[in-house]
Amino acid sequence: MPESIPADSVGLVTPETITFDKPLTLVCGRVLHGYQLKVETYGTLNTKKTNAVLICHALSGHHHAAGYHSMSDRKPGWWDNYIGPGKPIDTNELFVVSLNNIGGCHGSTGPTTINPETGKPFGPDFPVVTVTDWVNTQAMLADYFAIKQWAAVIGGSLGGMQALQWSMAYPERLRYALIIASAPKLSAQNIAFNEVARQAIMKDEDFHGGRYLENSTYPKSGLMLARMVGHITYLSDAAMRSKFGRDLRSGHLNFNYDVDFQVESYLRYQGEVFSEGFDANSYLLMTKALDYFDPAAEFNGDLTAALADTQCKFLLISFTTDWRFSPERSKEIVDALLNAKKEVSYLEVDAPEGHDAFLLPINRYKQAFHAYMNRIIREVA
Amino acid sequence: MPESIPADSVGLVTPETITFDKPLTLVCGRVLHGYQLKVETYGTLNTKKTNAVLICHALSGHHHAAGYHSMSDRKPGWWDNYIGPGKPIDTNELFVVSLNNIGGCHGSTGPTTINPETGKPFGPDFPVVTVTDWVNTQAMLADYFAIKQWAAVIGGSLGGMQALQWSMAYPERLRYALIIASAPKLSAQNIAFNEVARQAIMKDEDFHGGRYLENSTYPKSGLMLARMVGHITYLSDAAMRSKFGRDLRSGHLNFNYDVDFQVESYLRYQGEVFSEGFDANSYLLMTKALDYFDPAAEFNGDLTAALADTQCKFLLISFTTDWRFSPERSKEIVDALLNAKKEVSYLEVDAPEGHDAFLLPINRYKQAFHAYMNRIIREVA
Repeated sequence: MPESIPADSVGLVTPETITFDKPLTLVCGRVLHGYQLKVETYGTLNTKKTNAVLICHALSGHHHAAGYHSMSDRKPGWWDNYIGPGKPIDTNELFVVSLNNIGGCHGSTGPTTINPETGKPFGPDFPVVTVTDWVNTQAMLADYFAIKQWAAVIGGSLGGMQALQWSMAYPERLRYALIIASAPKLSAQNIAFNEVARQAIMKDEDFHGGRYLENSTYPKSGLMLARMVGHITYLSDAAMRSKFGRDLRSGHLNFNYDVDFQVESYLRYQGEVFSEGFDANSYLLMTKALDYFDPAAEFNGDLTAALADTQCKFLLISFTTDWRFSPERSKEIVDALLNAKKEVSYLEVDAPEGHDAFLLPINRYKQAFHAYMNRIIREVA
Repeated sequence: MPESIPADSVGLVTPETITFDKPLTLVCGRVLHGYQLKVETYGTLNTKKTNAVLICHALSGHHHAAGYHSMSDRKPGWWDNYIGPGKPIDTNELFVVSLNNIGGCHGSTGPTTINPETGKPFGPDFPVVTVTDWVNTQAMLADYFAIKQWAAVIGGSLGGMQALQWSMAYPERLRYALIIASAPKLSAQNIAFNEVARQAIMKDEDFHGGRYLENSTYPKSGLMLARMVGHITYLSDAAMRSKFGRDLRSGHLNFNYDVDFQVESYLRYQGEVFSEGFDANSYLLMTKALDYFDPAAEFNGDLTAALADTQCKFLLISFTTDWRFSPERSKEIVDALLNAKKEVSYLEVDAPEGHDAFLLPINRYKQAFHAYMNRIIREVA
């Protein structure tokens, strides 16, 4: 709980739910007959509507990116380190829009939503959604706010893929794309980890083919395992070493399967907490959106060709110890942009924290991010 | 099935079961009142008994390291690439002993063995065994064959840890230790992956607290997941990329949770096959033996001090793309041995195959291994 709201916080925020009645045809071919987006905004849209910034969330993210929902919140939004008055995404200057994507489980239309055709939760019947679908709904959201062009679309990890997709799908509708700790597509190893997570969920006896809500159960163990696997890939080996090493929880080995090492305790706890707050069908959908993202595929694998029609300027940021989406993956995008003769800046941040670094307050990252955002603010103010 | 036995194979082999009646006090404090070891031998012990080599197996290994059990075997033993007439571990010159460790599930005393005190399988009551315990039983095995000193103790991965332990526990009983793709202890990340595997098994509804045999069930899904996670860590990112890339199994995306990518199909298959042939309680035991191995712990973390009394010569081999036990982990052992003024050779093999490389026929590895073994043979013949 914040005893008082910090001065550089956006403060108490209230999400809103925005309803879209127009049917949405998804990449998979299925149609959503209307949908809702849960959204938070921070700062004020200027009269020319030129200072709007879109925040795209990663696998387990949502609309609550900054500030607090109440004075009893233990933590602020997930990117509070970077969004607020005087922060890199400066809410004194910018109008920040953050949403929960469709297929999610934090208020936007997704598997836990009641399917109007059946009167029951969509559950496993919710269609497989893609990054392209998300960007299309985000474009509708821009229309809702009468924003013709985003000053910037910004995201980390899966969020960075959305920023990249924006640059290709709606080239004239963003001035800048900030793509952080991301990749142009998953590697076989990335897909393999996602598949383990999916199998863990789907093989849980309480999964019931995805109809656990109807059965008043929940695949808690499966989701916990999925998160444990994921969590290992978010931390670097070095970060785990400095955080836990081989420290024993009780000072001695148990010679049984209770927790011996601190790292086991930490992972179990992370899995436990996550499994209580996230919908399993949503988790499956998010991993598939990751697996399917491959904008170069339509261009015979030629990412340069895929990026040929982009008009925005790009900032790519990667972190040295990120082994989920290593710096090499960001450089693939940078190289393709350079080949396509686009304006791109690239920063590789020396940080021990692994993939999670993109969420954390790291000086060099913060300074570079801030400087780049100031340049955008000067252009759009 | 081999149509005919290759000329450089040890041929058809028959394992034997050796019974030890003397009680064994384990590191955990519990006592095994006798135990059996399942063993294969290849080649002939010379009259001076100086040409014996011990092969130590890794997590999922066993006694069947080379040759065939019958003409209908699809594959030879797990290290057939390196054991046989004219191969690096040359059975024309050496007497090779390969065993299944206690706690295993391939014929040595372990969780599937009937506990004489209850008349039921030990199951989860089988004590947690350590690398030290294994080495102690292997010393009893040496006594059984009247082998005072091994020409070499050789192992990869967890097998390498046993070779390292031999050098410290019985310094005068081996001339050489060959430690391949191994580490002086697990990292926090290694332990984390093991913990995911254990949780996958223990949370399977069919685990029944480890008493699945009594309940006529089997935690197949859990073991499958455990193996899938493990398998990802055995392959390098590069190996997965060149093997599968993002190839689609059916040429198109399914937009459901069937297999889309070849890598998913491969992993599911690997998990499936493994889960049919391995005991879940044994898997738990093997991962704990890995987690617990830390010979420097008794010396305040000083590996050099732990190795002070070793008398054998050492060969360490690592593989560039092995991220389970990276070359840095082998170098920790090399550095400690050099500090302790021991004779050590080290080879880092440039190989794309990741941790699995130690099992595969790789020219440079094979040549160096062969040359080193020839030196041993010249000494002991």
